[in-house]
Amino acid sequence: MITSVHNEKVKNWLKLQDKKYRDATQTFLIESEHLVKEALKKKIVKELIVIEGYEKPQDISATYVTKEVMKKISSQVTPPKICAVCQMLEEKEVKGHVLVLDDLQDPGNVGTIIRSAVAFGIPNIVLSKESVDIYNPKVIRSCEGMIFYVNITRKNIFDFLASHQNDYLICGTDVKKGKLLEDTDLKGKDVCLIIGNEGRGMNESYQKYCETLFKIPMDERCESLNAGVSASILMYELTKK
Amino acid sequence: MITSVHNEKVKNWLKLQDKKYRDATQTFLIESEHLVKEALKKKIVKELIVIEGYEKPQDISATYVTKEVMKKISSQVTPPKICAVCQMLEEKEVKGHVLVLDDLQDPGNVGTIIRSAVAFGIPNIVLSKESVDIYNPKVIRSCEGMIFYVNITRKNIFDFLASHQNDYLICGTDVKKGKLLEDTDLKGKDVCLIIGNEGRGMNESYQKYCETLFKIPMDERCESLNAGVSASILMYELTKK
Repeated sequence: MITSVHNEKVKNWLKLQDKKYRDATQTFLIESEHLVKEALKKKIVKELIVIEGYEKPQDISATYVTKEVMKKISSQVTPPKICAVCQMLEEKEVKGHVLVLDDLQDPGNVGTIIRSAVAFGIPNIVLSKESVDIYNPKVIRSCEGMIFYVNITRKNIFDFLASHQNDYLICGTDVKKGKLLEDTDLKGKDVCLIIGNEGRGMNESYQKYCETLFKIPMDERCESLNAGVSASILMYELTKK
Repeated sequence: MITSVHNEKVKNWLKLQDKKYRDATQTFLIESEHLVKEALKKKIVKELIVIEGYEKPQDISATYVTKEVMKKISSQVTPPKICAVCQMLEEKEVKGHVLVLDDLQDPGNVGTIIRSAVAFGIPNIVLSKESVDIYNPKVIRSCEGMIFYVNITRKNIFDFLASHQNDYLICGTDVKKGKLLEDTDLKGKDVCLIIGNEGRGMNESYQKYCETLFKIPMDERCESLNAGVSASILMYELTKK
């Protein structure tokens, strides 16, 4: 049982709030029973951390800690009963529909998009180099464990689009010039859908790779939707095709 | 020009971060040029606060402050050039489609929903007493000025549903038992759509008032969508009717 917040292990767990340390160790922290369950299924748990008095899952060794220690390492106001240090997820080859996130900055948006991608059967997400880190605690929290069910890779978007022009129907978004997804013939191809940055929308220089641009019809007083909402509505429409 | 963060006015502006003070004064703070523009159109600006060297809108008096003061009163990491103290919005009679928010806790979700409501032409939002305060700085920020274009009222949900059973088609949400909105005959009635709390979904005791329950079809690995996303998808489907 670890009782001191000055313990070396505790200091290292705490450092997992920091991207640099996560990258250096190729690990990240998940909090809550639900997430730990998903991570155990995926066999990526390296270390289980359990609060005193709580019953840990069978057949797994764990480190017990006091409430005070759990509070110290948790990113939440109400600390969880259980958390785990996990190995970062493997990046696999991109096959099937793919969502491209163009410099998305808000961790809540990216978490929401990961959750919706699984809900609507999109198996891949490609993030630009400038997008938020998917192992950011807020991303992990807001994707509700769905991060384990989608193949997420970080790539240079220009290179990705240029090398996939033949195998994908590449689609961007444009609030004004776009047309409706439901009226578009997808030609039986897999779709590569680009979601633009929260502030500036899609990088205009990606347009030359786009076979078509989509919009979501809306009242003119509203300039745009939240990025997580527009991505989700387009993925939802895609499942109807 | 106010140069000291200890000035009485600055102390009062800072207190607007706090719900109790907002309620007592019936005012709230908005930050950014875009929001101030919208508030000026609505004629609810009581006090304009402008950073030194910045050109304020014509024909309006303003208080100039230093960067340090602006940083002190702002809720953002990068403080704005202009902000304003505004009179709280008037609650009007509910007429036309209405969205009912059942104890929504996350300010980002509520802001997103307000933004989508305007985008999809829903003129009213009724919040339960336990829902987050709409004048919370994070709600204001995430609704992108759309708070000025929707009639938001705070009510007891049971009373509201009970007294509107005849004039509304009351619809709830249920991830399992629900049916599709697009397959539902709305009978030419205005719709009252209830969106459930982030953790527990819709309060089950509202079901007796619901003529129908909706669901959004999704992969079984995903238990539910983000509340802002599900509300937005249902409002989006409603506009197609």
